Amino acid sequence: MQMTDTVRKILANYEGENPGVKGNLARMLMTGKLAGTGKMIILPVDQGFEHGPARSFAKNPLGYDPHYHYQLAIDAGLNAYAAPLGMIEAGADSFAGQIPTILKCNSANSLMSDTAGKNQAVTATVQDALRLGCAAIGFTIYPGSDMALDMFEEISQMRAEAASVGIPTVIWSYPRGEAITKDGETAIDIAAYAAQIAALLGAHVIKIKLSTDHLENKDAKKVYQDQGIDISTQAKRVEHCMQAAFGGRRIVVFSGGAAKGSDAVYEDARAIRDGGGNGSIIGRNSFQRSREDALAMLGKLVDIYLGKD
Amino acid sequence: MQMTDTVRKILANYEGENPGVKGNLARMLMTGKLAGTGKMIILPVDQGFEHGPARSFAKNPLGYDPHYHYQLAIDAGLNAYAAPLGMIEAGADSFAGQIPTILKCNSANSLMSDTAGKNQAVTATVQDALRLGCAAIGFTIYPGSDMALDMFEEISQMRAEAASVGIPTVIWSYPRGEAITKDGETAIDIAAYAAQIAALLGAHVIKIKLSTDHLENKDAKKVYQDQGIDISTQAKRVEHCMQAAFGGRRIVVFSGGAAKGSDAVYEDARAIRDGGGNGSIIGRNSFQRSREDALAMLGKLVDIYLGKD
Amino acid sequence: MQMTDTVRKILANYEGENPGVKGNLARMLMTGKLAGTGKMIILPVDQGFEHGPARSFAKNPLGYDPHYHYQLAIDAGLNAYAAPLGMIEAGADSFAGQIPTILKCNSANSLMSDTAGKNQAVTATVQDALRLGCAAIGFTIYPGSDMALDMFEEISQMRAEAASVGIPTVIWSYPRGEAITKDGETAIDIAAYAAQIAALLGAHVIKIKLSTDHLENKDAKKVYQDQGIDISTQAKRVEHCMQAAFGGRRIVVFSGGAAKGSDAVYEDARAIRDGGGNGSIIGRNSFQRSREDALAMLGKLVDIYLGKD
Amino acid sequence: MQMTDTVRKILANYEGENPGVKGNLARMLMTGKLAGTGKMIILPVDQGFEHGPARSFAKNPLGYDPHYHYQLAIDAGLNAYAAPLGMIEAGADSFAGQIPTILKCNSANSLMSDTAGKNQAVTATVQDALRLGCAAIGFTIYPGSDMALDMFEEISQMRAEAASVGIPTVIWSYPRGEAITKDGETAIDIAAYAAQIAALLGAHVIKIKLSTDHLENKDAKKVYQDQGIDISTQAKRVEHCMQAAFGGRRIVVFSGGAAKGSDAVYEDARAIRDGGGNGSIIGRNSFQRSREDALAMLGKLVDIYLGKD
Amino acid sequence: MQMTDTVRKILANYEGENPGVKGNLARMLMTGKLAGTGKMIILPVDQGFEHGPARSFAKNPLGYDPHYHYQLAIDAGLNAYAAPLGMIEAGADSFAGQIPTILKCNSANSLMSDTAGKNQAVTATVQDALRLGCAAIGFTIYPGSDMALDMFEEISQMRAEAASVGIPTVIWSYPRGEAITKDGETAIDIAAYAAQIAALLGAHVIKIKLSTDHLENKDAKKVYQDQGIDISTQAKRVEHCMQAAFGGRRIVVFSGGAAKGSDAVYEDARAIRDGGGNGSIIGRNSFQRSREDALAMLGKLVDIYLGKD
Repeated sequence: MQMTDTVRKILANYEGENPGVKGNLARMLMTGKLAGTGKMIILPVDQGFEHGPARSFAKNPLGYDPHYHYQLAIDAGLNAYAAPLGMIEAGADSFAGQIPTILKCNSANSLMSDTAGKNQAVTATVQDALRLGCAAIGFTIYPGSDMALDMFEEISQMRAEAASVGIPTVIWSYPRGEAITKDGETAIDIAAYAAQIAALLGAHVIKIKLSTDHLENKDAKKVYQDQGIDISTQAKRVEHCMQAAFGGRRIVVFSGGAAKGSDAVYEDARAIRDGGGNGSIIGRNSFQRSREDALAMLGKLVDIYLGKD
Repeated sequence: MQMTDTVRKILANYEGENPGVKGNLARMLMTGKLAGTGKMIILPVDQGFEHGPARSFAKNPLGYDPHYHYQLAIDAGLNAYAAPLGMIEAGADSFAGQIPTILKCNSANSLMSDTAGKNQAVTATVQDALRLGCAAIGFTIYPGSDMALDMFEEISQMRAEAASVGIPTVIWSYPRGEAITKDGETAIDIAAYAAQIAALLGAHVIKIKLSTDHLENKDAKKVYQDQGIDISTQAKRVEHCMQAAFGGRRIVVFSGGAAKGSDAVYEDARAIRDGGGNGSIIGRNSFQRSREDALAMLGKLVDIYLGKD
Repeated sequence: MQMTDTVRKILANYEGENPGVKGNLARMLMTGKLAGTGKMIILPVDQGFEHGPARSFAKNPLGYDPHYHYQLAIDAGLNAYAAPLGMIEAGADSFAGQIPTILKCNSANSLMSDTAGKNQAVTATVQDALRLGCAAIGFTIYPGSDMALDMFEEISQMRAEAASVGIPTVIWSYPRGEAITKDGETAIDIAAYAAQIAALLGAHVIKIKLSTDHLENKDAKKVYQDQGIDISTQAKRVEHCMQAAFGGRRIVVFSGGAAKGSDAVYEDARAIRDGGGNGSIIGRNSFQRSREDALAMLGKLVDIYLGKD
Repeated sequence: MQMTDTVRKILANYEGENPGVKGNLARMLMTGKLAGTGKMIILPVDQGFEHGPARSFAKNPLGYDPHYHYQLAIDAGLNAYAAPLGMIEAGADSFAGQIPTILKCNSANSLMSDTAGKNQAVTATVQDALRLGCAAIGFTIYPGSDMALDMFEEISQMRAEAASVGIPTVIWSYPRGEAITKDGETAIDIAAYAAQIAALLGAHVIKIKLSTDHLENKDAKKVYQDQGIDISTQAKRVEHCMQAAFGGRRIVVFSGGAAKGSDAVYEDARAIRDGGGNGSIIGRNSFQRSREDALAMLGKLVDIYLGKD
Repeated sequence: MQMTDTVRKILANYEGENPGVKGNLARMLMTGKLAGTGKMIILPVDQGFEHGPARSFAKNPLGYDPHYHYQLAIDAGLNAYAAPLGMIEAGADSFAGQIPTILKCNSANSLMSDTAGKNQAVTATVQDALRLGCAAIGFTIYPGSDMALDMFEEISQMRAEAASVGIPTVIWSYPRGEAITKDGETAIDIAAYAAQIAALLGAHVIKIKLSTDHLENKDAKKVYQDQGIDISTQAKRVEHCMQAAFGGRRIVVFSGGAAKGSDAVYEDARAIRDGGGNGSIIGRNSFQRSREDALAMLGKLVDIYLGKD
């Protein structure tokens, strides 16, 4: 398939970036059923690290096998598959060249005490990404955590190293920690702020959560109200987050969180589409369904992003 | 002895790994009385570091001499012998080429206060492993400790270095620390999680403890109950831990903890075998018995893994 | 397009190689009109360096512009485009992600005196290949030159560095120099030897010239005659060269040399196909024709490799 | 002064290059009386190294003082001033920020015997260029010399290093040596080849000599005649050299050689302009005149490039 | 199989060497049908590089496939398989852990002119040996060549690097070049000298050719005659070469050269055995026979070294 104008325009936003980075962005944008549309669906499977194996895979035990996820991403025609080192390695040879992979380079786990602080361990390197043929690295930051500055510094260094060898960076920007309430984690002002921070750190692709119309920060709240920023619908909130990602000059994909009913997933996707977002990153809602159901749901998501549904 | 299909299949799971790493895995799998079966018994002697010499060796004072353990592992027909730097060095020349060794690269000790946090000191390097002709490096992590992220980062880096020069990594994944109760340390949900984390960090061989049917984490407990995961027997729990090790794509060996009666040891081994585990890593239960009793017990363990008992 | 069994089998021959290298080989094998067939047509444009600009591009002056060649390779549905640093850089951003590129890392020129020896200058690095998003590096060796050992050492080092970061190596193996007569440069025994040397140096893709039935080396001549090796047709000679490339375990593409009539080009391609070669690397015969003629000729070559002609 | 479309288009040809390199190219293109026109006049003063001080500066002894040349370039409204390390250092502080400088990083001298081979010494580094605030580095190659491959390798490495820190490279491409006759040094086929080689090596700015209608290479001669390439006038020859510089995608400046009458200098400039060249690099013809004459002559050259003369 | 006293004594000669090097020597000495005897048969396949593919493999075309040689070495119960990078890589994964491999790190070829000098190209590194899980590196030196000092320096450096990471070095010590006549290449004084040089360079295993009773060097000749050194039989000459290898403190294996009748091969082996040599390195005489004949011949060689024939 030849490069489309849509993708060409997206790539042009990454100006000054070397052709290696652009080539890998193109690889993800030109793969799967959404190839060429500028839209993306990414399958992330790092929940085994974050929540443990049973909470992640017991509902659909095929998911214990790393090959299952590679194959699901390929068969569903997704743009990329993201996972930590061990998961990527376990199928990297069998699936070499079949689906762009994103090496998740840091990971959290649920076995940390409250006193440990909100942070993640760096568990993979740019060299790993090269050797494994990955199309990008992924890295989580926790704006709001007391460890946030350390995390920003880690990804800043890793991003620079990756870009110098032609590998783009996906930042999972997840507000969390001492400075943020539970409601604040999905507040629209915080979500937009998270997108902005990721963009400022040099993220090539930004992953944030869909947000609520809650406004966490008092000073921000005043601005939203004074300026009459419309945050009444999910689509409007997505649109606002795209503004925060350099007026749409950066690719932003949205996650929907814990497993839920398909209708809710579709509704999310329509809001992302209507708000001008680039797509979904959808883990538990994919692999905690049966393979059949997951393929059906992902197929419908593709249709939604293609504007057919 | 020629490579067996069983070992060939195990090696194939380490796809994308270089032939050096596979060759060393093969070395361990093709050594001793269990050669070729895909089963392993490993003798680990790091208790001198962990508990001090008298607690470790006074019951069988021959064990103060590092040569004793090399010879025991060889005479019992084990697959490998694991120990910290000093122990390995003290016999490395005499026993060169006679038994695969695993260089335990970090170690804890019992002289730390509670406030020091659960952690280990890195006391050996990949370069040591090469110079000493080791077949693997070993590294302990403490999921649940407030120091866990640091430990994950240390082993991630060391593993990458080791694999690049053809040396596989054995991770001792021992939940412990601020986030875990005493019962939780051997809870099945935590044991499976520990196996998963080790696999995600890129462990080639995973060492975990046998577990109880206790469920530590509330969210996990709900999943185990809702999904009706059978954790009623040790064999079922081993089976579940193998699932957590990438659906059995990674070698997992189990430890039985403190010295106990032989019958209990045999029962453990039968459960490991019946649950599809790869074998035992058995320290105090070996060297705290007389050499004669230890050889008898290890001989019987071999028979159990061979399905003769 | 999903990976085909044919390509899967080819990749399996690169055993022990990391997934990055295999992924980039897959990228070339799964691109263009021959995607998935295991056959390749590559457009190389290093003649400006070798013969100067007018001798290379005057017949079709559009070829002075580096963009012309990128676009030709894309429009003709070729597998890859190979060129020196300056040519690749001049279009790397415009065509990022649109066609796999091979960075030719050393180059000869026609301005060297006879006393200078047959050699090439290294004019690009693995780091350049990463930054420019190239799918492979290319390197010429001159077996038969008094400088050959130096060239072998240069590419050995560069290949090792490239493979460690997931980049495969294409070796142009062109016998030339003090030890070889003019006829010998295309003699079948020398061509097969050239393929063998490239394979032994670790080439992932080998480029040699089509050969004649001349036998250059006396000792070799005796063997060919005694063993009754059939070298009477071009197809048989291609088949023999594939044997020399590890019994077909390495990808070999053949070049046809100076510009000639289309029928001769087609005849070459049929011989390559019938002899089990992997394809053509075809420079002057492409870009020294008008774009229209080149596209027609390349289209017919595709048909030949698809077995339709 | 705001960036012009002309300069914007030129910069766009350096695609994939980082903004640092483009910024420095812009600095030269947006300086002096030709700022914004895409035309350049550069003052190079490396003749003291090449021919010795008296042959270079005795005619106008002010030229012994490095400050003289800085001031001349500034007062004449030139785009840049190029010189070896010592010359640049001797005025770098006084004139910091007043005129873009090109650090000439290798140099020849007239004290070498014929047997020494045609080569230059590398006498400055990229680090020097950064410390001295230079806008570019300069490097001479001698295509045709038996040392040419070494020179190509040196500049390839230095260029890569320079570009990585945002510094563009000017290549003086001067055919000379064992493979070239005296007439051949300025033959049009050789001049075009010299431009091509510099472009392929990744030069951002190419400096070649104006050429004659002599054709040195027999194979090339045939092509020029067969294809009817018009090389009858200097303007046509400049045009052909621009073709050889990637169809005009690279900046090319031309030198006029030894000091001569002003009319000849103007004639050269008109030919460069009419043939689409980017300008003049003019040393002895500047500083071997009195300051007054030089300023007058350079003023007229500016007018010529502005199309006013 | 447990380590034998014979092997233990051999290893003790490598005093001061680290356990990694000894472990790898043990690996080769404890593998195959001669395991534990201190005798070795090694299959070397670098003739494709040295003589070209047809001269090497046409007699038994299965040999074009690198897998053939791995399998032959395994099935014949040999101690090790030696080959250049490409050959080792092409089967390193399939045969990981099945047979010790020796990575031949430099190689000659038959396409060099006489003026090029007798030398080899370094085509693999210690890092390659680690990544490929090799038990040793191999390196050829040409005592007598004008390039010999360079070769000595290369292997000295490589040996030091290899030993520091636990990899022993096999030196192919082949007198050849300007200082040696054709007869001299196999003269007994030269063969013994070659063994001595290899030992002095730190070779762990020395490969030399079987010799004739010719005495090349006049001064040496006088000594041999004056001292009445018995060089009348091949066994006596082997014995003398073992003296030259530090009085038998270094492992020496002998090669028999071009393919010949089996009886001659057996006679060679009996002489090696009776003279106290460590074994045979036997290439063309293995793989240029049919697999059936080769296995029969190698089986008989094993019997000879076991003293059964």
